[in-house]
Amino acid sequence: MTAAAKMETEMSTSTLTTNGIDTAALRQIAQDVAADASKGLARFTVSTAWKGGTRTDTHVAAWHLAGRRLPKDFTLRTDEPVELLGGNTAPNPQEMLMAAYNACMTVGFVALCALEGIEIKQLRMDTEGELDLRGFLGLDPAVKPGYETLRTTIHVSAKATKDQLATVLEAMKKTSPNRWNLGQPVALQTEMVVA
Amino acid sequence: MTAAAKMETEMSTSTLTTNGIDTAALRQIAQDVAADASKGLARFTVSTAWKGGTRTDTHVAAWHLAGRRLPKDFTLRTDEPVELLGGNTAPNPQEMLMAAYNACMTVGFVALCALEGIEIKQLRMDTEGELDLRGFLGLDPAVKPGYETLRTTIHVSAKATKDQLATVLEAMKKTSPNRWNLGQPVALQTEMVVA
Repeated sequence: MTAAAKMETEMSTSTLTTNGIDTAALRQIAQDVAADASKGLARFTVSTAWKGGTRTDTHVAAWHLAGRRLPKDFTLRTDEPVELLGGNTAPNPQEMLMAAYNACMTVGFVALCALEGIEIKQLRMDTEGELDLRGFLGLDPAVKPGYETLRTTIHVSAKATKDQLATVLEAMKKTSPNRWNLGQPVALQTEMVVA
Repeated sequence: MTAAAKMETEMSTSTLTTNGIDTAALRQIAQDVAADASKGLARFTVSTAWKGGTRTDTHVAAWHLAGRRLPKDFTLRTDEPVELLGGNTAPNPQEMLMAAYNACMTVGFVALCALEGIEIKQLRMDTEGELDLRGFLGLDPAVKPGYETLRTTIHVSAKATKDQLATVLEAMKKTSPNRWNLGQPVALQTEMVVA
């Protein structure tokens, strides 16, 4: 079933759903958080275990909304490709970061369209970035270990004008959490406990 | 099998392997890239398809090293929890970003230990961060949509002194790609193609 077909099915069960998003519930969340900011404090936590070589398993056991613990149970795997001394059994951390970036922008774009009553037929985001491994390998301190630039192409088909979609895009760019996390510096605190 | 036991098994098949990392191959990569920087240009690409509501599938079809296309075939899923209008069928983009961050730091830490001949018994990284949803909801332009701070605790057990591990930690912090990507601003180019 295509995303559009799934959306139609979901729409038939609720007149308030656009793009599979319950817009009435979304407006209610915004109203609640506007009235009491503590209702919108969302804490996320992950635990990453080394599994030998370049393999990791990250477990997500819960998140917290407004101080309330909400259980989850998901595991995310990473590995490096053979050329980077791994077993190529999973995507690597760089690809996972870009997936997290695209996924966050997708949710923002879809929700903003829903609030505007714009029905999306298809949406795809392609992102690429290049690393200069001299940074990771510590060969040259002048070479940054991360991405200089991430380039994204958003392919969208929707019942809207180009101007309407451009307005949604600008609003998404201002409000996407992971776009902020990559585009602006996040303070990184790191503590090490040696057993 | 624990990571440590797996490492021992792998070590028995090659005297050059520490922590499951082929250190001779790692030194060879560093030597090749030092001699010719183009050998260390690694391009990563992902394609994220919207699957209705807050669901996405990100496909990784290939990466490029020194201009050579190397096929892969992995899919990363995300969804939002029910409280954020999703189906809670997968981790959300914020959790995936933290998994990518931890996984990258883990690979760097393990590889640096291997080069120093430090055998790791256990390694775990726990990261948490808090979002103020007024940012995502566009309620207050003064509230950032992303993380103010990411807090990480690294739990490590290894055949090394605390000073040796502290030195590895500092080297990892300087060279981890995803640590750089979150701690420093990445330029974000976005183009939209309307069908």
